[in-house]
Amino acid sequence: MSARISFFALMFFALQGCTNVPVRGTGDLGVVIERTTGSIEIIETSNRSVLGHVSGLGDLSHASVNYSRDGRYAYVFGRDGGLTKVDLLKMCVVKRVMQSGNSIGGAISQDGRLVAVANYTPGGVKVFDSATLDLVADIPALDATGQLSKVVGLVDAPGNRFVWSLFNSGEIWVGDLKNPAHPVLQKFTGIGKEPYDGVITADGRYYMAGLFGEDGLALLDLWHQEAGVKRVLNHYGRGEQKLPVFKMPHMEGWAATGNELLVPAVGRHEVLVIDENNWQEVAHIPVHGQPVFVVARPDNRQVWVNFAFPDNDTVQVIDVPSRSIVQTLKPGKGVLHMEFTPRGESVWVSARDDNKLTIYDSETYTVQGELTADNPSGIFFTHRANRTGL
Amino acid sequence: MSARISFFALMFFALQGCTNVPVRGTGDLGVVIERTTGSIEIIETSNRSVLGHVSGLGDLSHASVNYSRDGRYAYVFGRDGGLTKVDLLKMCVVKRVMQSGNSIGGAISQDGRLVAVANYTPGGVKVFDSATLDLVADIPALDATGQLSKVVGLVDAPGNRFVWSLFNSGEIWVGDLKNPAHPVLQKFTGIGKEPYDGVITADGRYYMAGLFGEDGLALLDLWHQEAGVKRVLNHYGRGEQKLPVFKMPHMEGWAATGNELLVPAVGRHEVLVIDENNWQEVAHIPVHGQPVFVVARPDNRQVWVNFAFPDNDTVQVIDVPSRSIVQTLKPGKGVLHMEFTPRGESVWVSARDDNKLTIYDSETYTVQGELTADNPSGIFFTHRANRTGL
Repeated sequence: MSARISFFALMFFALQGCTNVPVRGTGDLGVVIERTTGSIEIIETSNRSVLGHVSGLGDLSHASVNYSRDGRYAYVFGRDGGLTKVDLLKMCVVKRVMQSGNSIGGAISQDGRLVAVANYTPGGVKVFDSATLDLVADIPALDATGQLSKVVGLVDAPGNRFVWSLFNSGEIWVGDLKNPAHPVLQKFTGIGKEPYDGVITADGRYYMAGLFGEDGLALLDLWHQEAGVKRVLNHYGRGEQKLPVFKMPHMEGWAATGNELLVPAVGRHEVLVIDENNWQEVAHIPVHGQPVFVVARPDNRQVWVNFAFPDNDTVQVIDVPSRSIVQTLKPGKGVLHMEFTPRGESVWVSARDDNKLTIYDSETYTVQGELTADNPSGIFFTHRANRTGL
Repeated sequence: MSARISFFALMFFALQGCTNVPVRGTGDLGVVIERTTGSIEIIETSNRSVLGHVSGLGDLSHASVNYSRDGRYAYVFGRDGGLTKVDLLKMCVVKRVMQSGNSIGGAISQDGRLVAVANYTPGGVKVFDSATLDLVADIPALDATGQLSKVVGLVDAPGNRFVWSLFNSGEIWVGDLKNPAHPVLQKFTGIGKEPYDGVITADGRYYMAGLFGEDGLALLDLWHQEAGVKRVLNHYGRGEQKLPVFKMPHMEGWAATGNELLVPAVGRHEVLVIDENNWQEVAHIPVHGQPVFVVARPDNRQVWVNFAFPDNDTVQVIDVPSRSIVQTLKPGKGVLHMEFTPRGESVWVSARDDNKLTIYDSETYTVQGELTADNPSGIFFTHRANRTGL
């Protein structure tokens, strides 16, 4: 009899758990931020379709997404300090916490157990258990004088560490979260004026902070932290003439192509080629406008570039070996982001003002599909769960 | 009685069949080959546990695995020519075809729609629809004299291409499968005597074939196919003295660490350091035995090495910057394979003769877990779906 009850219990749970939930893999899923409606669109890249929407995520301007290590859950970081855990299979909000007044993105630890958020107000980093969203560490960004600083450029690094920058005080901090109850902090001060964003190379070795208050980049080699933070690319930035900058370029997604790094110039219509061995600029490639994202195709053969207003209807493709523009595309009005499928055969492009996503074959540039989305901005595929710094 | 039987039959199907399918992500799943029982063990890396087993997969000596782009299905290539599609969520065989008499591995196309298999008998490549396992292309490996050759070293490459080598006739073929009904073949002849295995760099640019019949490696730059196949590392191989070689080292997983490639020497107790810019040997690192797999941790900071008999109870860890051995481990008898979690915090090691898997923290070398498996050999995690050449 008890066996019989267990049987019906089993059937019941089998039906309850699964009625609306398709059994499917999560390796080809992704999320598109719909910034004005506070919702996300869940898509899949195998048949290039929209699976559904999840709303109630708050202010999603400048929102970004990380994924759980199993690819099932998206952690959505909103501008209003909201952190929302979304189940991509059930397409619903699992949990949502308002963790600060104003935040600027986050990162997930190497082991997938911790989600860290960079906050402007109050300035600091909060770290949450990725399963429960319980707060496990609260690290205020206090400088030596006791002032709070805005936190920017937060990334994950190998060894369950996070790295971030303090905008107001000009510092880079490395936080070892192997024991979240006792974060071990290493602080680098005087790294430059007003770091505004940061990026870590795909191997998790080099962390770079862009400076808003002066030219140059602050570089930290995480394999040799004893060497401290160095200044590289001294002319990188807005330059002597303080050119009008319509949008500071994003650092996430800087295109590392083996020995070279291709980065957007600030204010100028150029993509810069940097030798990663000596951090010198070895070339600059004229492009259509002020570059915003400079993203390498996964095979590093091509780099795709989008632009700030008024050139934000255009995407250009650079052939890396010849450093030449091989294609100019017009995906729509307000192109905000580009995301490659993990093996690079396709690239998805969001056009905010046309409410659409365009999917290109990255070899032939033919359009493989178009989908609607409400004012789409960032596009994030689940393979990011398996990469450092994404 | 018959009611009782059908009740248990129902229970059986509830447990074994499709009703009790857990809703879960697939990004943290993996497969372990159990070579003597013709079965696979399905594991997950978040809680480091065994989820179940699937049997009836034939002769799995030297078996390998590819994954569908959604991470749900494993394609298992058996030595007996069997190609089996396994559903990791339902934990059952979806379809199994005996596609040749003797095969040696396969690859999945960049777009995930095609599965290609390298065959010894009869020699050639067969290509299947990844959804249905229907045959879509059959490419016999006929040389200029009309003789069939064994096919080895089959890999995927960008542009929905596959690359493979012909053992008997000494050729490398590049097959463009954008239109599977009309494969476009480019053949490179006279590339060297008896290519026995091949590897493609993670960016999909360089294909290398190891030669059994003479020393040296055959190198094809897929960005410059017009330059043809070059011979590099002329002393790579068994060498003048024809040292006894207990096991030819595997080429898959050769450790590319940015500018350098770390490869197992053949017959000698050394790992060779190759400069990827000029393909010269720049150093050799003495190790415990004849190396078999030389695998880079995803951050390229470390390389882990296992060994041929009689040293196959040992794993050594090389610190890449200093080129020194920093750890020697004894995971058990008959260590056959090592697989890193995608972001590198852990490495799983199979010990065939001890019927176990040992999971190490890759930074502290502490044991994070041990699991049983029946004569385990290869370990394959689903993030391979998102990488070229894996």
